[in-house]
Amino acid sequence: MTGPELANHYRGYIVCLNAQAWPQLGDFVHGHVVHNGRQLGLSGYRDMLIGNFADIPDLRFNIGLLLSDPPRVASRLYFDCTPSGEFLGLAIDGQRVAFTENVFYEFRERKIVEVWSVIDKAAIEAQL
Amino acid sequence: MTGPELANHYRGYIVCLNAQAWPQLGDFVHGHVVHNGRQLGLSGYRDMLIGNFADIPDLRFNIGLLLSDPPRVASRLYFDCTPSGEFLGLAIDGQRVAFTENVFYEFRERKIVEVWSVIDKAAIEAQL
Repeated sequence: MTGPELANHYRGYIVCLNAQAWPQLGDFVHGHVVHNGRQLGLSGYRDMLIGNFADIPDLRFNIGLLLSDPPRVASRLYFDCTPSGEFLGLAIDGQRVAFTENVFYEFRERKIVEVWSVIDKAAIEAQL
Repeated sequence: MTGPELANHYRGYIVCLNAQAWPQLGDFVHGHVVHNGRQLGLSGYRDMLIGNFADIPDLRFNIGLLLSDPPRVASRLYFDCTPSGEFLGLAIDGQRVAFTENVFYEFRERKIVEVWSVIDKAAIEAQL
């Protein structure tokens, strides 16, 4: 895929997440995906996302910046949401928080095989 | 600049930082640079970096992942260093810590005009 094609494919992945369209997740995520050094595989990755939506009922992924340099994508995601309990070890307890995630992805055969993510925890702490 | 040219130019910026070659910083950083929403300008940006090296005497920037999608660069930086006192509000006090920074840059006329950086504070906390 060209850079623009890979960027469009990535946008489809974000649409899939926001729709919680889990049967389609395998179109975007590789069976042996690794997330921040953990070998989750597709089912573990899906379980992580389902858990995120359970912990944050109004979770929505918003793309701020998007770079495509095949086979990699880098994205700055914006969140404005209300974790119901604990999040990143912080007691949020239903407070609304806004924060960002700077995340890198590597694709193989149109599917994400590795993710390197950093969430701006300090920004959340500053809002508590 | 093409993608590979911008990536090479960015590598020169990292060489400049590690050499603490402050008179050359203006070759890479715009006079009106904004860092995480703060309008620092070149002198404020330089002061921030000088402060980082003062707080972390063995600071060294290591590029892990590098994406170039002109006019933007995304980089995952690795650090393995020894902050002498407080860092990100954490009392490090001379302990060696390893952590990453996922950071986006926008260039204009070969110079960085905006930076969006997230440091993995949770990873540092886990080492204390």
